[in-house]
Amino acid sequence: MARRIKIVNVNTNEDMTRSIREAAQRCALPDTEIQAVSPRIGPASVEDYYDVYLSVPGILEEIRREEADGYIIAGSCDPGLYAAREATTVPVIGVGEAGLHMACMLGHKFSVINILSRFNTRIEEIIKLNGLESRCASVRGTDLSVLDVQNDKEKVRKHLIEEARKAVEQDGAEVIILGCAGMVGLDTEMEEKLGVTVLDPVVTAVKTMEAIIQTGKKTSKKLTFKPLEKKQIRGYSDTLQP
Amino acid sequence: MARRIKIVNVNTNEDMTRSIREAAQRCALPDTEIQAVSPRIGPASVEDYYDVYLSVPGILEEIRREEADGYIIAGSCDPGLYAAREATTVPVIGVGEAGLHMACMLGHKFSVINILSRFNTRIEEIIKLNGLESRCASVRGTDLSVLDVQNDKEKVRKHLIEEARKAVEQDGAEVIILGCAGMVGLDTEMEEKLGVTVLDPVVTAVKTMEAIIQTGKKTSKKLTFKPLEKKQIRGYSDTLQP
Amino acid sequence: MARRIKIVNVNTNEDMTRSIREAAQRCALPDTEIQAVSPRIGPASVEDYYDVYLSVPGILEEIRREEADGYIIAGSCDPGLYAAREATTVPVIGVGEAGLHMACMLGHKFSVINILSRFNTRIEEIIKLNGLESRCASVRGTDLSVLDVQNDKEKVRKHLIEEARKAVEQDGAEVIILGCAGMVGLDTEMEEKLGVTVLDPVVTAVKTMEAIIQTGKKTSKKLTFKPLEKKQIRGYSDTLQP
Amino acid sequence: MARRIKIVNVNTNEDMTRSIREAAQRCALPDTEIQAVSPRIGPASVEDYYDVYLSVPGILEEIRREEADGYIIAGSCDPGLYAAREATTVPVIGVGEAGLHMACMLGHKFSVINILSRFNTRIEEIIKLNGLESRCASVRGTDLSVLDVQNDKEKVRKHLIEEARKAVEQDGAEVIILGCAGMVGLDTEMEEKLGVTVLDPVVTAVKTMEAIIQTGKKTSKKLTFKPLEKKQIRGYSDTLQP
Amino acid sequence: MARRIKIVNVNTNEDMTRSIREAAQRCALPDTEIQAVSPRIGPASVEDYYDVYLSVPGILEEIRREEADGYIIAGSCDPGLYAAREATTVPVIGVGEAGLHMACMLGHKFSVINILSRFNTRIEEIIKLNGLESRCASVRGTDLSVLDVQNDKEKVRKHLIEEARKAVEQDGAEVIILGCAGMVGLDTEMEEKLGVTVLDPVVTAVKTMEAIIQTGKKTSKKLTFKPLEKKQIRGYSDTLQP
Amino acid sequence: MARRIKIVNVNTNEDMTRSIREAAQRCALPDTEIQAVSPRIGPASVEDYYDVYLSVPGILEEIRREEADGYIIAGSCDPGLYAAREATTVPVIGVGEAGLHMACMLGHKFSVINILSRFNTRIEEIIKLNGLESRCASVRGTDLSVLDVQNDKEKVRKHLIEEARKAVEQDGAEVIILGCAGMVGLDTEMEEKLGVTVLDPVVTAVKTMEAIIQTGKKTSKKLTFKPLEKKQIRGYSDTLQP
Repeated sequence: MARRIKIVNVNTNEDMTRSIREAAQRCALPDTEIQAVSPRIGPASVEDYYDVYLSVPGILEEIRREEADGYIIAGSCDPGLYAAREATTVPVIGVGEAGLHMACMLGHKFSVINILSRFNTRIEEIIKLNGLESRCASVRGTDLSVLDVQNDKEKVRKHLIEEARKAVEQDGAEVIILGCAGMVGLDTEMEEKLGVTVLDPVVTAVKTMEAIIQTGKKTSKKLTFKPLEKKQIRGYSDTLQP
Repeated sequence: MARRIKIVNVNTNEDMTRSIREAAQRCALPDTEIQAVSPRIGPASVEDYYDVYLSVPGILEEIRREEADGYIIAGSCDPGLYAAREATTVPVIGVGEAGLHMACMLGHKFSVINILSRFNTRIEEIIKLNGLESRCASVRGTDLSVLDVQNDKEKVRKHLIEEARKAVEQDGAEVIILGCAGMVGLDTEMEEKLGVTVLDPVVTAVKTMEAIIQTGKKTSKKLTFKPLEKKQIRGYSDTLQP
Repeated sequence: MARRIKIVNVNTNEDMTRSIREAAQRCALPDTEIQAVSPRIGPASVEDYYDVYLSVPGILEEIRREEADGYIIAGSCDPGLYAAREATTVPVIGVGEAGLHMACMLGHKFSVINILSRFNTRIEEIIKLNGLESRCASVRGTDLSVLDVQNDKEKVRKHLIEEARKAVEQDGAEVIILGCAGMVGLDTEMEEKLGVTVLDPVVTAVKTMEAIIQTGKKTSKKLTFKPLEKKQIRGYSDTLQP
Repeated sequence: MARRIKIVNVNTNEDMTRSIREAAQRCALPDTEIQAVSPRIGPASVEDYYDVYLSVPGILEEIRREEADGYIIAGSCDPGLYAAREATTVPVIGVGEAGLHMACMLGHKFSVINILSRFNTRIEEIIKLNGLESRCASVRGTDLSVLDVQNDKEKVRKHLIEEARKAVEQDGAEVIILGCAGMVGLDTEMEEKLGVTVLDPVVTAVKTMEAIIQTGKKTSKKLTFKPLEKKQIRGYSDTLQP
Repeated sequence: MARRIKIVNVNTNEDMTRSIREAAQRCALPDTEIQAVSPRIGPASVEDYYDVYLSVPGILEEIRREEADGYIIAGSCDPGLYAAREATTVPVIGVGEAGLHMACMLGHKFSVINILSRFNTRIEEIIKLNGLESRCASVRGTDLSVLDVQNDKEKVRKHLIEEARKAVEQDGAEVIILGCAGMVGLDTEMEEKLGVTVLDPVVTAVKTMEAIIQTGKKTSKKLTFKPLEKKQIRGYSDTLQP
Repeated sequence: MARRIKIVNVNTNEDMTRSIREAAQRCALPDTEIQAVSPRIGPASVEDYYDVYLSVPGILEEIRREEADGYIIAGSCDPGLYAAREATTVPVIGVGEAGLHMACMLGHKFSVINILSRFNTRIEEIIKLNGLESRCASVRGTDLSVLDVQNDKEKVRKHLIEEARKAVEQDGAEVIILGCAGMVGLDTEMEEKLGVTVLDPVVTAVKTMEAIIQTGKKTSKKLTFKPLEKKQIRGYSDTLQP
């Protein structure tokens, strides 16, 4: 039985969306149909809280189209995840949480390597809300921007590997979680250089979502994620009206 | 020296905005100028995570107009607070956090009385992110909706008082924080009926913001709340472009 | 590319091993080869700490045979999991942790429904070591024994459903994790009766392990799970000698 | 409506009391009447637990005189705060807690800069009892004594600024809380040198207490802070008898 | 080698001091010399924070006399314990902490049964500062006063047994810690009635202090408990001057 | 009244058992009879999780012989402690927990100095399960093995002292707990060199067990540690059958 997974990149960068799509297709089962989209509205990159919040309406719009068996929100800090779970009956996971939970089954302590240091607070917030502070060795960021990823990929890779090395050697990380999408092959390169397990969040999320869909399990709609109530939401598209 | 405080109601309900404005003006210092607005876009009431996220762009738009000495986000779960702190150089507080911190100085344990139970998860999330779980006796909600507030205010008051009574008698709450705005006089009524201290979040936030402005202190722009970087944010008004 | 998963039932009850094997085969991918075994030595059921510790040598013996691409320890409290990770280079997960992590992606709060109340302390210990206390609504047990499962399955099911109902209605659980293996169809029956998502731990673990093997990721051998050092272990089989 | 705030310096150093009084008067509203006193009995400086406990009877004596609309205990570790709340019906706050709560609304993480390192344990205790460990970047102390403050103010300022710099650069502090009173202008000087928000605890407490008195809220007398029961307390002044 | 243990009752009730002395002598080793004293100054009973703080100077005076090999502070909330550790070079323990630590080695979860409910907050504070919240099933209090202990001992015993029963049956307590001293034989009576282990705090502390003295270990004077510095403490006896 | 304490060394190293016996006898009361044994089966040293689990059946066998008034499990990570409590009616303590609890009464923060770094995770697990993370300054390990203890005792001592020094100077430890048994006189040597209190775990446990036996208290058999139920445990000796 085939299944459709729709991945919503959290930024409007089409190049990154393409990288995400390719990475997802490469790791998916043969009968999994992968769709990867950029939101219609939102920031070109998600680098701070302001970007996070302005990315969510566009993300929710994609979720509301209701055309898949499961959704993945592809941004390391899982923007709008709980809102997305309210907005649809099919399962929704974030690449952030998927990486955290998988890491806990492959090592004792993990570190998240993030592109921008200023975003560390947000990543720590996600780890705290998932309840996994005690499994976290560190959250580390570089001085680069998400857009640098497009311009000088080699520089970005070097900086990320350098921070990961510190996480392993100074902080006691046993598993590294990449806090960025679209870095093809970086996990493998890091594993070879550092001798630890390294998780690509998009790949982890795709395999986790395939597992969920195959078991037939869905988001519990009992309390927190009850269906939306009808109401007017001024200034947004019809798709977003509950 | 006069000061201007702008209160951003998180929903587009103008009646509630009016109630908030009146409550704020009543408690403000004579030389404090109060402005209270509804966002241009967003939901008519904030009752779930979906509403929270769709309320934020409208809230941020009001913050970005840069016309006050301090901003208050008036919704018990502080939607978009950290993004707002990035978006302006003047101080921004949420009525949720203001109530939590003040409650800690007036009693040992507090409870938040919330209109809808489904929203308890979000309130608990805010308490956790503020770090105050250990001071929280309980978060309690009724079966009513925010819009009920407009239709049958007496019924709402009765239900809220009933939940507050349980918080005091069963959960050990010493201070009650109202998880809703625009309920004129409910704090006083509850104090008389229950014999505990009861905080109106809007009043608490206005007095806290006056205190902040008078000391001349502002949001630290060092790490988490650094200024926004220039970038294109597709599909939003000019006001929201960094 | 086919993959072999070996499931080690933690008790020596062959009937339960058969049920586990069947449940696993039913949910596995067509090209996944499932092997399910009882340990050569150990207790007929795992109902207390004493059983947990006496089950581990037999479990480790099965892990040490090194004949699979991934191992699953099938007992809700994950006996010997960290030792098993040291003992082999391929990934090892426990059905307990797999259920906890998956539950976090399908609801906000979970409860574990356990057969015997006396075992609640051990389940709480596992939740604490995984770091997920803040996501746990409750751990609940009945007054039955694991062996009752064989004798009066209907009675067991009724009691488990009853405790799960209390978890949902009194404790705020949104996802129920079954704390026992080999209860075919109980998850579906509970979902229908209670209206929440219910996870069968064996099914969850099989799908999680398939996901792990497909990504090619393995246990990090950097710090906690470094390979065993050569030494004599008196009174155990050759298989168990490092 | 005018209001009277009485500040109880925790040590018997009259010079420090004078500095506190001046700082308080400078920041107070025009119609706030500030009274600042040294206790009749107690240590000349509060530098360890022994001092803390021997300062409390003198502090409580001042609280028991019942001559203000609100009391402030002016010592960074809030000696006797909970006892003071039992001892009067008007609100009582400590400069320690006032700084912690205000810092949380002006930045994500704060550090407390303390004069003596040996006192760090006590400051950490206060942060823990307030529940704010997760918002604390660090508590840092110098090698100086409180009495040094009187003798070589310049040296003290230099050392405090140095520790604050480490808090910002090494620990990730976004807001600095001064752990000492009577350092006129040090907050502003530090803000200029370090580029972060710096809170003077006395100023913060005065503005917080004005806000509390203006709202008419008082300490909840429900459970923890119930009125004192009549009983004989041997060896203390009449003022201290309940 | 004989040893002298001095027990400082935290209140000035001589009857209770006598009960404590007798209980201590009964359980002590033959060559342990027990001294039990009431403080010269302080409250007749310790029932709230106010009493706690006014009891400490008298307690410290007894510690400062330096005439024993070890001190025990006999009040369930350990008033002034950290100050006492600074004030002498010999070991000092509180009956509160001694009970908590011993309980952890005799069962998984403990409850403290306290005489007055209003004092629960203080007991919870002590448990939190000891770091043992996760081992605590509950803190329960009755509606009685410490002085009732003298007037109607039978009523007090009945109420305490009743609360202990609720702790076992409703809260999951496996060990009960008596939160009051001088109740001869209550531990044994409760054990018979409830079928759980019950600890008398004075007995536990005496045996713990004997153990400490026999090993020759003392309070670490490295950081928190460094010796007092010379300074004037106004209004206190010579004994209390550092 | 004489008492018998049986110490179960967790490894099969007879030399270490002899050292433990001698240390115990030296510190015991004259009328305490000390028995110290190596398990019949198990690893020659306990250096990882694998060793921990394979040591437990041999340990439990010794506990099941029921020939003492109290048992001590002598391995710093308390292998099988909760199982041992189920397996007998007399009290059982581990040297690990005994050290942790005693340290809390002799200083504010402790560090555990462990022989092998890879074992730090297990020691941290024990600290977490005891609930004492907030009292722990650090867990530190060297690069040596338990067997090195036999071969080059001087080297081991030097390395342990070096790590302890870092714990005191860098981590703020006030009490050092030795994470190894059989190092005669190391505690005293370290105390002289570092100026802090140092606990030998075997000595601490013997004195704690004497205290417990003298008070007549036993493990609570109410919930977690209820007696074992009859059942067949395949492949183990008769002694181990419940």
